[in-house]
Amino acid sequence: MSAADVKFQERLTIEQVEEGNDLAPKFDDRGLITVVTTDADSGELLMQGYMNAEALRLSIQTGEAHYWSRSRQVLWHKGATSGFVQKIRELMIDDDQDCIWLRVEVAGGASCHVGYRSCFYRSVPVGEDFAAKTAEGKIDLVWTDTEKVFDPQEVYGDAPNPTQL
Amino acid sequence: MSAADVKFQERLTIEQVEEGNDLAPKFDDRGLITVVTTDADSGELLMQGYMNAEALRLSIQTGEAHYWSRSRQVLWHKGATSGFVQKIRELMIDDDQDCIWLRVEVAGGASCHVGYRSCFYRSVPVGEDFAAKTAEGKIDLVWTDTEKVFDPQEVYGDAPNPTQL
Repeated sequence: MSAADVKFQERLTIEQVEEGNDLAPKFDDRGLITVVTTDADSGELLMQGYMNAEALRLSIQTGEAHYWSRSRQVLWHKGATSGFVQKIRELMIDDDQDCIWLRVEVAGGASCHVGYRSCFYRSVPVGEDFAAKTAEGKIDLVWTDTEKVFDPQEVYGDAPNPTQL
Repeated sequence: MSAADVKFQERLTIEQVEEGNDLAPKFDDRGLITVVTTDADSGELLMQGYMNAEALRLSIQTGEAHYWSRSRQVLWHKGATSGFVQKIRELMIDDDQDCIWLRVEVAGGASCHVGYRSCFYRSVPVGEDFAAKTAEGKIDLVWTDTEKVFDPQEVYGDAPNPTQL
């Protein structure tokens, strides 16, 4: 079967969507569904992205993560440039079917365009820590990972940085 | 300090946002930032939600998860109705600072309004499984959790279901 064969069902009732066996994903007004991607072994959050219907169909059919790149406005087979393909071990959908959770194995071990394993390498002090560590509300991020696993310049060359201000 | 004292910095350069110590979150055109919430012990994905600036400030200052409810259009102190407060063990921010990762401890152990521990209790077969288990592309979701940890009717009573078709 090809990706085009992957069928989504019409959303008819709350019971069907929340407690049924139908795959009836909700795409937002941009045609996108939110995706959360974690490392299947460590549980670490690697990235948060989006899929359109085609990316979801391709992910299901191939077992490799495909996204919709909002900054580049293209279908994005993760790893096509960097080699860091994400093999999907488990694809979960949430109660109201507007969010996808991918548990993946990453070839090469990196997911972040800045060069770190995960896109999440800085933490924000909260609660008592916030009160103790901040002066007049100005927060200093705390680095939880300082070792890059690849050199972005080497991998991406002169491709534009996807971060937008 | 009160939540109003929590300061966000202006986003000036990509280097500052990606590799600096400033907390300079990017709120989208709705004024929201995406939030991914996992169980701090098991690594399980519990839910995906949104915060506005006020919810983020309150989360940082109190150490308890606050969200913006899109369906109800109100600030939402998670657990205020159900009792399932989320104590934040770690609040991470991603490379371009448009996504928050909360690692939380959940009082009572439930996060999903349907009654399950997690909002993610069904999986979609992918790759070879997809080819093997589906007939003509029609997908049957596979249940990975079938035991509700609370009765939504008892906890929420007649409050409207947040799921929208």
